[in-house]
Amino acid sequence: MRLRPSLLACALLLAPALAGAEPPPYRGMQEILDAAPAGDWRELDPERTLYLELEAGRVVIELAPGFAPEHVANIRTLAAGGFWDGAHVYRVQDNFVVQFGDAHADDPARARPLGSARTKLPAEFERDAAGLDFDALPDADGWAPEVGFADGFPAARDPAAGKAWLAHCYGMVGAARDMAPDTSTGGELYVVIGQAPRQLDRNITLVGRVVQGMELLSSLPRGPEPMGFLEDPARWVPIRAVRLAASVPEAGRERLQLLRTGTATFRELVESRRNRRDGFYVRPAGHIDLCNVPLPVRRAPD
Amino acid sequence: MRLRPSLLACALLLAPALAGAEPPPYRGMQEILDAAPAGDWRELDPERTLYLELEAGRVVIELAPGFAPEHVANIRTLAAGGFWDGAHVYRVQDNFVVQFGDAHADDPARARPLGSARTKLPAEFERDAAGLDFDALPDADGWAPEVGFADGFPAARDPAAGKAWLAHCYGMVGAARDMAPDTSTGGELYVVIGQAPRQLDRNITLVGRVVQGMELLSSLPRGPEPMGFLEDPARWVPIRAVRLAASVPEAGRERLQLLRTGTATFRELVESRRNRRDGFYVRPAGHIDLCNVPLPVRRAPD
Repeated sequence: MRLRPSLLACALLLAPALAGAEPPPYRGMQEILDAAPAGDWRELDPERTLYLELEAGRVVIELAPGFAPEHVANIRTLAAGGFWDGAHVYRVQDNFVVQFGDAHADDPARARPLGSARTKLPAEFERDAAGLDFDALPDADGWAPEVGFADGFPAARDPAAGKAWLAHCYGMVGAARDMAPDTSTGGELYVVIGQAPRQLDRNITLVGRVVQGMELLSSLPRGPEPMGFLEDPARWVPIRAVRLAASVPEAGRERLQLLRTGTATFRELVESRRNRRDGFYVRPAGHIDLCNVPLPVRRAPD
Repeated sequence: MRLRPSLLACALLLAPALAGAEPPPYRGMQEILDAAPAGDWRELDPERTLYLELEAGRVVIELAPGFAPEHVANIRTLAAGGFWDGAHVYRVQDNFVVQFGDAHADDPARARPLGSARTKLPAEFERDAAGLDFDALPDADGWAPEVGFADGFPAARDPAAGKAWLAHCYGMVGAARDMAPDTSTGGELYVVIGQAPRQLDRNITLVGRVVQGMELLSSLPRGPEPMGFLEDPARWVPIRAVRLAASVPEAGRERLQLLRTGTATFRELVESRRNRRDGFYVRPAGHIDLCNVPLPVRRAPD
């Protein structure tokens, strides 16, 4: 929150000298990431990566087939069939979601055909916790018995019920539905752009997470209250296409890596955010919320 | 998250008939607010209301003298002296904050004079809980022993220590500082535009909350990573002025009312969001986070 990064840099350099003692082995995020071994990073898999192409640029979404296999399969089919070519962002609700797809989805006379995609999918609100690699946070959470990370996504788990599910943190992508739980097709997708609406957890199918280009969605002009639907087509934001990365020639793909959550590097990163000791914080929080944990992404080194 | 509000309206109308039984006395937010007695609303006090005038429109901020009396007094002095006339928004960090004031604040040769405002203020990170009307939420919070609302703001309290403080929820306004806790003047202000950075609670002085026009800040183009500072002056967002509402002729003021948090109306609203029973949610959360509680604002009835 400092006025300028340069001041922070000076303070960090001076802090150990001023303290007059051996500094504690605290490292900030960038320092931790710079020191991470190459194996702590994983490549983004083109078979589970979606490119949302806007006029302003590309939004990269990592899909979560481990949690929503049927939705992810349908999204792949929709993308291959060009379902989103010329579709739109038609909802931007402040502190909640951006939603995109077919602006006429609920008008049978005008709705885009789903092509060979399925028109009916099961709700995929949760999955069996058995067989899932779950890196639990020790921090208490009001919404779930346990929270942490699975497949690189923010997630929650109920050990007693043996279930796990994805959590509605900033940047998470979900499949919009009507009143009945099994009415999402994956054609209408939303992205969280505000305070985590965790009340939606296990009430709607989450399908992935934005890993790059989030600012292209979060900075869109807001639609009218209360729900942000842009009723005026002139305000819709055109979508050029949504494509699976694997269908894009290799030269045109993003080469991104994500930090693995099961690593000592990630644990140090979380602790460095739970208790910040960079000289600015007079009172380290001693706590971190699931949705405040950064999930670092970087360009793959050449 | 439904595709269209019209579908929701239909479902709400049909739900009791379909259920075949006496519907539970559940009401959604708008219904609760529409039924609220006039006395449940309070007028925004022009003496503690700030107008941030951008080219795109007006952002209305309610100040919190009950928590940050010295900062609020200084902000009033700065506004009266025209400190922000021609100043800028010079930082927009995605999922964190928008920051505005004097883009040259840390360059003594170019910094704007503070006029008759004080150049040194005490840190106002917390206050005595004694004498504070605090409406506690029953919901657990990971960051503080107790959370709730005080003076209409999201707040936290430590009963053992006898202290209370404001919480960094979406829309809260704080006074940027350097490394030393007592280096904020109120001239450089930030507004939370992302997931609540509660780790900043009690580490920085919060001075108020945006009650109208939040979308003018939250939709600004993001600055470069990692901290969102707009190094290119061409990208700064001009500020026409920041004025205390009381200094604006009455015809030019916003006539806004805020729902009182100590009322039965507010308690019903919170419960209606903690456990949503509108037919869409298959699993009411049974919990609400402090920063997910809406703090309703409306135009004053004529």
